[in-house]
Parts: sequence; C-alpha cells; structure tokens
Amino acid sequence: MSDIAPTPEPPYYAVIFSSHRTAGDKGYDDMATRMVELAAQQPGFLGIESVKEDLGITVSYWDNLESIKNWKKNTEHLEAQRLGHQQWYSHFRVRIARVERDYGI
Amino acid sequence: MSDIAPTPEPPYYAVIFSSHRTAGDKGYDDMATRMVELAAQQPGFLGIESVKEDLGITVSYWDNLESIKNWKKNTEHLEAQRLGHQQWYSHFRVRIARVERDYGI
Repeated sequence: MSDIAPTPEPPYYAVIFSSHRTAGDKGYDDMATRMVELAAQQPGFLGIESVKEDLGITVSYWDNLESIKNWKKNTEHLEAQRLGHQQWYSHFRVRIARVERDYGI
Repeated sequence: MSDIAPTPEPPYYAVIFSSHRTAGDKGYDDMATRMVELAAQQPGFLGIESVKEDLGITVSYWDNLESIKNWKKNTEHLEAQRLGHQQWYSHFRVRIARVERDYGI
C-alpha cells in the first residue's frame, strides 16, 4: 500500500504548496479535506500527496497548466484561498513546476 | 520563523522525493540528517523542505539539472541511495521538475 500519487509518464505538472499554519483550527481541517475532494474532481487532476507537521507540504499533480489555472479560479477554492491568506497560514509558498523525469520503486 | 526554503526567482529546479519507509530505523535517521547536511554543501543547492509522517515528502531545490546530476552521483549519496533501495523504503518516487512560477506570503 502506498499513497504516493500514481502519476503517468512525464511531462506533467506539480503544484508544490509549502505552508506554516497559524495557531488554532478555525475551520481549517474541514476545508482542507473538502479541497482535496474537490481538487480530485477537477479536469486534469492526476493525484495529490500531503504531509503536515510543523511545516506542511502538499503536492498536487496536473496534466497541464490550463488545469492548474482552472483549479485556482474554482469558486470554492477561491474562498479557501482567501481564508488561507487571512487566517490559516503565517507563511506559504506555491511553486508551479513541470515534471520532466521520474523514477522509483 | 519559517523553514520554507528561501528560493530565488524562477526558473530553478525541484526534486520531489515521496517515500514510504519500511519498519525500523536501521540507521536511517542518521543517514537522513547527514544527507541534508551534505546536500546543502553541493554547488547549486538552493534549499530543502522535508516532512515525514507515514508518507514522507522531501523537496530539494537546485539551480539547474547539472547540479542535480552531480548530487545524484556524489559518492556518499550513492551509498545512501543503495541502502534506501535495499532497506529503508518500501516505495518511493523521485520527480525532477522545473519550477516555472512561484508566489506566497
């Protein structure tokens, strides 16, 4: 068993979201769960991997930049982004990257 | 305070390493610490972010593909890769990606 995303042959895209939370839940956990569900329903979604300790890293995988743009402007996601800025994150960085090669076991 | 890597303006490269460990430490923690120290000394290293729960995600950032290739063939790192294959990881995937855009707070 592995929750490593079963992505196809490259090229495809990764959105690397690295974040530090503010203190307190303030609705974050429910929204985070909802955003993973919702992302998975979007056209071009390939998979997601997420680990959270003090630092959180979530990497979502997409077939192309257009899919990423569409997800960014999804109405529910826009509201989550707004709350993220206002309340949930003290720091975050989003990196949009083209996966050129992959390998593994 | 944030341990989000202070990367420069894109473009640069990310190596996304997603892994599942086998049971038991077997020297893993010491080697993981050593590999982060050693990576940070390599030419072209820009930063690293790492979070481990059941799934582990480590993202290292590099100035170009040549730096990544040189790090991959570093002698101590080759030994760590060998032990990773043999003992430490039940599954892993390495994805090499070109960061095209980033933003954050």
